[in-house]
Amino acid sequence: MALEKIAGVRAAARDVEPFVADLFKAAGVSAESAEACARALVDASSRAFDTHGVRLIPFYMQGVTGGRINKTPTLTVTEKAASAVHIDADDGFGHFASYRAIDEAAKLADKTGVAVATVGRSTHHGATGCYTRYAATKGYVAIGMTHADAMVVPHGGAAAFFGTNPLSFAVPVEGEDPLLLDMATSSIPFNRVGLRRATGTPLPEEVAVDDQGHFTTDPNAAVWVAPVGGAGFGYKGSGLAAMIDILCSAFTGMGHGKTMASFNGPDFSKPIQIGHFFILLSPAMFQTLSMFDARISSFVEDLRAQPGKPGQTVHAPGDIEKVEAKKRAVEGIPVDNVTWAALEGFAAKLGVKVPSSTVDAV
Amino acid sequence: MALEKIAGVRAAARDVEPFVADLFKAAGVSAESAEACARALVDASSRAFDTHGVRLIPFYMQGVTGGRINKTPTLTVTEKAASAVHIDADDGFGHFASYRAIDEAAKLADKTGVAVATVGRSTHHGATGCYTRYAATKGYVAIGMTHADAMVVPHGGAAAFFGTNPLSFAVPVEGEDPLLLDMATSSIPFNRVGLRRATGTPLPEEVAVDDQGHFTTDPNAAVWVAPVGGAGFGYKGSGLAAMIDILCSAFTGMGHGKTMASFNGPDFSKPIQIGHFFILLSPAMFQTLSMFDARISSFVEDLRAQPGKPGQTVHAPGDIEKVEAKKRAVEGIPVDNVTWAALEGFAAKLGVKVPSSTVDAV
Repeated sequence: MALEKIAGVRAAARDVEPFVADLFKAAGVSAESAEACARALVDASSRAFDTHGVRLIPFYMQGVTGGRINKTPTLTVTEKAASAVHIDADDGFGHFASYRAIDEAAKLADKTGVAVATVGRSTHHGATGCYTRYAATKGYVAIGMTHADAMVVPHGGAAAFFGTNPLSFAVPVEGEDPLLLDMATSSIPFNRVGLRRATGTPLPEEVAVDDQGHFTTDPNAAVWVAPVGGAGFGYKGSGLAAMIDILCSAFTGMGHGKTMASFNGPDFSKPIQIGHFFILLSPAMFQTLSMFDARISSFVEDLRAQPGKPGQTVHAPGDIEKVEAKKRAVEGIPVDNVTWAALEGFAAKLGVKVPSSTVDAV
Repeated sequence: MALEKIAGVRAAARDVEPFVADLFKAAGVSAESAEACARALVDASSRAFDTHGVRLIPFYMQGVTGGRINKTPTLTVTEKAASAVHIDADDGFGHFASYRAIDEAAKLADKTGVAVATVGRSTHHGATGCYTRYAATKGYVAIGMTHADAMVVPHGGAAAFFGTNPLSFAVPVEGEDPLLLDMATSSIPFNRVGLRRATGTPLPEEVAVDDQGHFTTDPNAAVWVAPVGGAGFGYKGSGLAAMIDILCSAFTGMGHGKTMASFNGPDFSKPIQIGHFFILLSPAMFQTLSMFDARISSFVEDLRAQPGKPGQTVHAPGDIEKVEAKKRAVEGIPVDNVTWAALEGFAAKLGVKVPSSTVDAV
C-alpha cells in the first residue's frame, strides 16, 4: 500500500478514539456499538490503513442519521455446530458484530482447533484486518473476509458484479506485531478513480474499465474498477472475489454483492444486510506452540533477508504499515482537512469536545 | 486459463486411468498410491487442467525411481482436535494423502461444521483442485492449498522465495459440476517461460523477472516468475503466497518453500517434505441446504448473465474447463507427443499394455 501525504492535522490516537465514540454516542448509538466502531477506525488509522480509518466517520454518520445503521442493535449469537457460530448483527455497526465474532470463534477454536464465525444482517465493518489482527493478538491465526456492493467487473465483464471483497490474514509473530495481509481483490478501490479525476492524473494500466468494459487509464472514462490481475490474469482476482462473495452470502444467509443497494447511497435509510466470514485456527492444537512460533519467526526473517531489486527491500505482509504505525504512535494519526472539518461540524452540532490537534504540513 | 492446442494423441480417460495406475504399480508403487495418482492426473486432464495432468507422469516416475517418492507409504492419521486432523504422508504420493485428507476432514466437518486437514511429509500432489473438487462432489465447500519450491520472487525481490503456491476453492452447484477455482498465486507457471524460450516469443508484461529482479518480457533473460498483480499490485499475489506458505508449513511441521530442494532436481533421491492445507465446510450446518443451494445457483446464474466486453462472455470460475471437459468426455483426453512417447517407453520397459489412441491433429 502506498502511503499518500495529505493536508490535514495530527491528533493522538488515545484522544481520537474516545472522541469518535462520543460522537456516535451523542448521535444515539449504543455505547458498545460506538466504542467498537471507534476502536476499529482508530486502529486502522494508527496502522496507516487510512482508506478505512477515521475518514469513514462522515460515511457512517450518514448511515446512522439516515436509518441504515441500527443505533441500538442486539447481537444474537447462535452456535450452529461445535466449530461454527453465527452472529446476527441486527443491522448495527459491522465493527461491533465483527469483534464479537472473533471472541465467539476463539471460544470454539480453543476446543476444536478451528472455528468459523459467520456474520449476517451486518453493515460495513471498516478494515477487515482489524478483526483478524485482533484475533492474532489473542494468539490465533485468522482469515477474514467481507463482501460489499458491486463496484468491480468480473473478468471479461462490462458491468460491476463484485464488491472490492477484501481478504485478510493475520498471524501472531513472537516479539512483534502480527503479520497482517489485508487486501482488496480489485487492484484499486473505486475512490482512487475519484482522486485521479480530482487531480487530473491518469490511472495505472488495467485497473479500471469504461462503460463497455474496456480497460481505460482515463479517470473520467472509468466507471468500474477491475479485479487484481488485469487484462491477462484478472480471472484470478475475479475468482477470489467470487469465493469471498459466496462465503459471505450463502453461509450467512445474505444475498450476493450484486443484490445490495449501493453503499454510497443515495438511499441511506435501508439496512444493507451484508455478511462477513472469519476462520480462526488455534496453532497449539496443530503443532507445539514453540515449534509453530519458531517456524513463523524463521519465515518472516528469511523473507525479509531476501535480496531486493536495486533500491528496494523485501517486506513481510504488513511491514510497511508497522513502521508507519510506530511513527504515528509518536506523532499522532493524520486526519485530512476535509474529514477533520466534518468531525468538528459533528462535534459542534452534537455538543462533543474536539481533542487537541496540530497542523500536519504536507 | 487459455487452452493451447498441442500435437499429440487422444485417448479415453477410462482407458488412461488404469494404464497410468498400472505403470506406477509395475514400477513398484503400492496399488492405493498408484491409483490415487492416476485418478488425480486423469481427473486434471479430463478437466482441461493440462499443466497438472498426465504430462506429469515422467516427472513422478523420476521421483519414484530416484527414491524421492516412497513407493509403499503408510499414511498416519492423527486427530489433533475435534476439527483438526493431520495426515503424515510418509513421503509417498501427495495425491494419495490428499484424497485421504478430504475423507478425514469430511468426517469431522459432519460433526462440527468445519474441519481442517493438514498434510505433512508429502510430495507434489498435482492439481490442488482435484481434492477440493472431490470434496464438493461429496457436498462440502472446500478450500485447498499447497506450497512448493521457490520459483516466485516476493514483491520487490530479486530472487525466488515462494512456490507458485496455488489456492483452490470448490462449491457444489445443484444440477451441474462444482464451481471450481484453482489458481497459482504467480501470474504464470515457470514452464511458460520455457515454452516461450522454445517458441522465441516474448512473455506478457510483468510476469517474470531477470536476475536483478527487474521485470522482463524476454524469456531468455527471465530467471524467476512474479506474483500475480505485477509491478503495481504484486504485493497482493505475494501476500497470498505468504499466507499459503505459512498454512502449509507452520501448521504441518514442514519448512517454508525456500527451504525445499528444487522439485525439478537434479536430486530426485531425497524426499521433498512439503505440506498441504485443506478446509472443509458442511453447508447444511450453516444454512438449510435448500437455501444454500438456491443462493449458490442464483450467484452462478446472475454472474453468467452479466454483460461481457464486446465479444466476451462472463464465466463463473471453472466454466471454461467444464465446457472442455464435456468435449473430452467424447473425444478423449489429449496427450502431447513428447509425453505419449515417454509413456510408451515406460510401458515397454515395465511390460504394461498401452491403451488405444488416435492422432490428434493440431
